[in-house]
Amino acid sequence: MTGSTPDVIDPHAEDLEDIALGDDYALTANYVDMVVDAADRGDTARLRALVHALRAEDVADLMGFLSADYREDIIPLLDAEELAEIIAELDTNLREEVLESVPPKQLAAALGELDSDDAADVVDDMEDQQRAEVLAEMSDVDRAAIENTLAYGDETAGRLMQREVLAAPQFWTVSQTIDHIRAAGDELPDLFFDVYVVDPSMRPVGAAAVSALLRAQPEAKLENLMEQVTEIPVDMDQEEVAYIFDKYHLISAPVVDIGGRLVGQITVDDIVGVIQDESEEDILALAGVSDAGRDATILDIARSRLPWLLVNTVTAAVAASIIGAFQDHIAKLVALAILLPVVASLGGNAGTQTLAVAVRALAARELNAANAFRIVRREMSVGLMNGIALATVLAGATFIWMRDPRLSLTLGLALIVNLFLASVAGILVPLTLDRLGRDPAVSSSVFVTFVTDFMGFLSFLGLAALILF
Amino acid sequence: MTGSTPDVIDPHAEDLEDIALGDDYALTANYVDMVVDAADRGDTARLRALVHALRAEDVADLMGFLSADYREDIIPLLDAEELAEIIAELDTNLREEVLESVPPKQLAAALGELDSDDAADVVDDMEDQQRAEVLAEMSDVDRAAIENTLAYGDETAGRLMQREVLAAPQFWTVSQTIDHIRAAGDELPDLFFDVYVVDPSMRPVGAAAVSALLRAQPEAKLENLMEQVTEIPVDMDQEEVAYIFDKYHLISAPVVDIGGRLVGQITVDDIVGVIQDESEEDILALAGVSDAGRDATILDIARSRLPWLLVNTVTAAVAASIIGAFQDHIAKLVALAILLPVVASLGGNAGTQTLAVAVRALAARELNAANAFRIVRREMSVGLMNGIALATVLAGATFIWMRDPRLSLTLGLALIVNLFLASVAGILVPLTLDRLGRDPAVSSSVFVTFVTDFMGFLSFLGLAALILF
Repeated sequence: MTGSTPDVIDPHAEDLEDIALGDDYALTANYVDMVVDAADRGDTARLRALVHALRAEDVADLMGFLSADYREDIIPLLDAEELAEIIAELDTNLREEVLESVPPKQLAAALGELDSDDAADVVDDMEDQQRAEVLAEMSDVDRAAIENTLAYGDETAGRLMQREVLAAPQFWTVSQTIDHIRAAGDELPDLFFDVYVVDPSMRPVGAAAVSALLRAQPEAKLENLMEQVTEIPVDMDQEEVAYIFDKYHLISAPVVDIGGRLVGQITVDDIVGVIQDESEEDILALAGVSDAGRDATILDIARSRLPWLLVNTVTAAVAASIIGAFQDHIAKLVALAILLPVVASLGGNAGTQTLAVAVRALAARELNAANAFRIVRREMSVGLMNGIALATVLAGATFIWMRDPRLSLTLGLALIVNLFLASVAGILVPLTLDRLGRDPAVSSSVFVTFVTDFMGFLSFLGLAALILF
Repeated sequence: MTGSTPDVIDPHAEDLEDIALGDDYALTANYVDMVVDAADRGDTARLRALVHALRAEDVADLMGFLSADYREDIIPLLDAEELAEIIAELDTNLREEVLESVPPKQLAAALGELDSDDAADVVDDMEDQQRAEVLAEMSDVDRAAIENTLAYGDETAGRLMQREVLAAPQFWTVSQTIDHIRAAGDELPDLFFDVYVVDPSMRPVGAAAVSALLRAQPEAKLENLMEQVTEIPVDMDQEEVAYIFDKYHLISAPVVDIGGRLVGQITVDDIVGVIQDESEEDILALAGVSDAGRDATILDIARSRLPWLLVNTVTAAVAASIIGAFQDHIAKLVALAILLPVVASLGGNAGTQTLAVAVRALAARELNAANAFRIVRREMSVGLMNGIALATVLAGATFIWMRDPRLSLTLGLALIVNLFLASVAGILVPLTLDRLGRDPAVSSSVFVTFVTDFMGFLSFLGLAALILF
């Protein structure tokens, strides 16, 4: 929730600003090269000019494109406020590294410049000892706000919310409310979009948009301007919060404690980040990989990807054991070994298609008990239809190539069976995981690929044993 | 940009509202059953009560869970404003179906209730004849606004923006601005978050947040309150617009024409939908499937998934031809046929992991020419390390099982080669597609899987021919 004040200091800054960002508003490779060049030459004045021509968000981006040595050249050039804004924008891994290189006193000053939610987010990424030292340097009020925020669970509404909030009783008029806002000053958030109308026990009863306040006559009462609010419980998971904001097109929403009392607000700009994070997680989870961060070491990255590959090793070995069971048949007819991977590969692809559709529909809550049966039946029909289509194409091609009608028949039947089962697995596996309260993106594809490999091999070789031998 | 006014009419509505949504704020399966039950019994009063207990967004959700017959029972129960809000929330496929069942005059009245961007979005989904009939029923002003919006390209800023916007000259004071807002009424958007400060040729020079206006003294000048604005060109792609909103945490931004003049505004709630859509597209594209919509027929869905499966058929057949080239070796040593799919499968998985990481990083603009070389080198090292790890495990297991040291060596070397090449393909394919200006999510995985299948077969069988025979 920071405004977008530029940090223009240098006289040449205007020109630099123009070349820093490409047409797509991303930092250009050319600008990164200029920064590296200035740092290599030890030209601090030039480096300072280059850095100060950027907004905080772009400096954070720049950090991501540089290696650690260059980052250390840049940090001393920043004042407390600049440092705070940049740290708030950094990815976790980079942030941890940058935090280690700044003295506690300077960090405490920087954090004092941030809203309570952003400051708590940064403190959360510190090592225990550094956290204690930095909190000791902060004012009692700032420290208490950060500690209270950190008391809420990770990825909950309590962590996302700002404590600063604008509340007013329903009998107030517009002009009373505006007078209150002018007098309140620093207690209010930097930006706000709604006045929460509360009863005497601080329970929200409605909300008036700031634009409605401006448009109304000064003597109008808040209770006549307010609309229904959607309250967010303080312990709600951030993915739920994002769903509600997206669904009802909310700009801000009041956060309430277990007694229904107003304790803070969440604004949509925090939610945009959550939505990005959650869908990135889904993309990576479906591929069996987690985001190790831009600055993780090669060993960290390799280690983070190995578990899934080991699971896949076991499932591939089990599937391969099916081939072992039919090795006498393969020795007699090597064409089976040639066609085998085709059956498994097409099943794998069809299963992945169904899986991606199911994971997306579950994430968008378009798939639940009300329509699950209809969707499962739909996917089974689609699998069967495409199985028949591919069976026709491939059985035909195999016949032209090998002139063996029984081999072609075997291949065709195996493809139909495998594509049907691929669709069944592709929809039932994520549905089941979801019903069990687990994330359907995380482990679905290992199950689905196992089913399509195992059943692909079994159906093709089993049918071959029946039809060909 | 609709507020959240409930449509409470029925005396029992309060109770129904409580049971309509689950803890996760999604419509419950139970509620959908109640709607189906009321429709089956022809109990219109009950159906009306059930529908009117929901907000427009939830009625749109309900439509998605029902089949077409039930939707037709519900539409006549809605008045023009309710219908407009629900149509604005529907997915394209459902919307087309619903639009067909409403007479032009009623549709024109409904669209008059919406903001220009939402109304244009609905009109865009109509058949040509219906569009002409509906536009003929509308007022000249509304029709011109819709036609002007539709003149902008699909998925551009011009389509996303509202024409209603609050602009003021920089010499105005806060109190002059508030007087203008009170007088302007309907010309202003329903909700607004910023006053755009413009020069005499209507070029934005800054923006003042509405909350800053409320907080300032009445005699303060706008030029002293305003901050820098990020202007959005009217022809910018919506994905770019979303990137800018996310990066700079914007709540609203002015849209300018080619001469830099203010022509509208985009607000963050429109952007949340764009971000959701774009990342859903990436998840589906990586799996080689497009979203056919909840209400597409089974034939449509099967057809939409077939092209990718056919491409995969060709690549799988080419890869299988490698096996054909080595069939004499396989006939002599069937163990090769058993281990072959394991090599290909692990390569495929490692390639998919790298690919997902690369597609995510490209989408987040964390990967460009400035760091591409470093990231490619990193991925190659990771591929090599995990290749060595898996080679050790599998060569060892194969030795214990088959007691053939040369076969184990062959398998191990093939795994190292294939995992290395999988990483190279996983990063270079999406980077190359991106450099060519194509979406790296769309066709990457067909290339990568082809490389890992082809090279997996070739490396294992080629090494086997060298080492074992």
